[in-house]
Amino acid sequence: MLSPHIVRAYDHELAELGNRIASMGGLAERMVDEAMAALVNADTDLARKVIADDATLDEGQRWIDDQAILMIARRQPMADDLREILGAIKIAADLERVGDLGKNIAKRVVAVTEVRQPVQLFRGLEALTTLALTQLKQVLDVYASREVSTIGFVRSRDEEIDAMYTSLFRELLTYMMEDPRNISPCTHLLFCAKNIERIGDHATNIAETVYHVVTGEMLPMDRVKVDKSHQIVIRESPEE
Amino acid sequence: MLSPHIVRAYDHELAELGNRIASMGGLAERMVDEAMAALVNADTDLARKVIADDATLDEGQRWIDDQAILMIARRQPMADDLREILGAIKIAADLERVGDLGKNIAKRVVAVTEVRQPVQLFRGLEALTTLALTQLKQVLDVYASREVSTIGFVRSRDEEIDAMYTSLFRELLTYMMEDPRNISPCTHLLFCAKNIERIGDHATNIAETVYHVVTGEMLPMDRVKVDKSHQIVIRESPEE
Repeated sequence: MLSPHIVRAYDHELAELGNRIASMGGLAERMVDEAMAALVNADTDLARKVIADDATLDEGQRWIDDQAILMIARRQPMADDLREILGAIKIAADLERVGDLGKNIAKRVVAVTEVRQPVQLFRGLEALTTLALTQLKQVLDVYASREVSTIGFVRSRDEEIDAMYTSLFRELLTYMMEDPRNISPCTHLLFCAKNIERIGDHATNIAETVYHVVTGEMLPMDRVKVDKSHQIVIRESPEE
Repeated sequence: MLSPHIVRAYDHELAELGNRIASMGGLAERMVDEAMAALVNADTDLARKVIADDATLDEGQRWIDDQAILMIARRQPMADDLREILGAIKIAADLERVGDLGKNIAKRVVAVTEVRQPVQLFRGLEALTTLALTQLKQVLDVYASREVSTIGFVRSRDEEIDAMYTSLFRELLTYMMEDPRNISPCTHLLFCAKNIERIGDHATNIAETVYHVVTGEMLPMDRVKVDKSHQIVIRESPEE
């Protein structure tokens, strides 16, 4: 039997993995939030900060990967703990991608704001971002609390994000049809919107991982994508 | 000491993981290839087939994940074998994403081809796809052969893909400026191009994983993204 000392050291390592995931989550959320603020306020300094922050997030993921492998090699964990450790690797990968998506938005700040855009243009994107970041935050709260019984919110929120993205896609395409000067900035905003929609997908991935870590079961959600943006065709004259 | 029988059973399991990765790779490549063919030929039946194939790819990833966890739990592998098994999990995740990107292109077939598009519109996208799929295929060949000394091609190819994507982005934006009727189809083609560019990124991820699995070291490539598409602004009148 393992000595209490060894068991405690292992629990301490697991808790440390959890803390690092929480830090990565906080940083990823902040990057996306700041990337959007940089976009709305044409703030290229803030955009540069977001781009630089990505290295810290990558570093966080590498730490978790290395530590996870060390823990598996040293502790030879059995099913539950192994699921916990592999879950941390998966969640870290999702959070690293969320940061990449934030960085990607930050990189578009110059192209979008070279000509001052009406604030109204950003409204839909801001609403979508709020929704996706709330989703991510709540999923990470479930990871920290282990209260997976509350995880049902994920599915309806994911559908809400997809529906809002589809409507934003249509709105941006309409601006492009109305005035060719909108084509360049709105194309970049379309990619920003797609990035935010994908943050929602990563939040859902994390929810599935958390559920599996805690229960050993797959999350029964029959995830139905309601993103219909790929079907959108806008004609020049609706009457045609 | 382990008996030869157990060692052989373990080698057999490792080889089986490799075979499953190879099948996933073949299917992912075919999905992307067929999605592009569906787009160019306005073939909605083929598009539907690609979308359906995604479930098989997901199933492949689940099998690898489950098998990898079983192997770790049963065999308690040490450093090298552990890296091999965790590498298989990572590569399977990248291949699953490649299939998703192919599915995403297939989903846009109807919106792009609702009005018959000139074949020339697809030329750039086809060239980009050939490049990205060649990259993926060669990286998977290195995974199978373990000949990581040849992996230097990855970096220059990745730069080539990024540069071609940037030029395609500019070309599609120009079509949109020329004729508002191009806005809807070209927007979807922009997203298709982005999907293909991301397949190149996944191929690079896989190359990094393969190098780490085989050598235990990080691939020294100082990956520099030359995708400049996020900076592109096209004005209505270039003279302005």
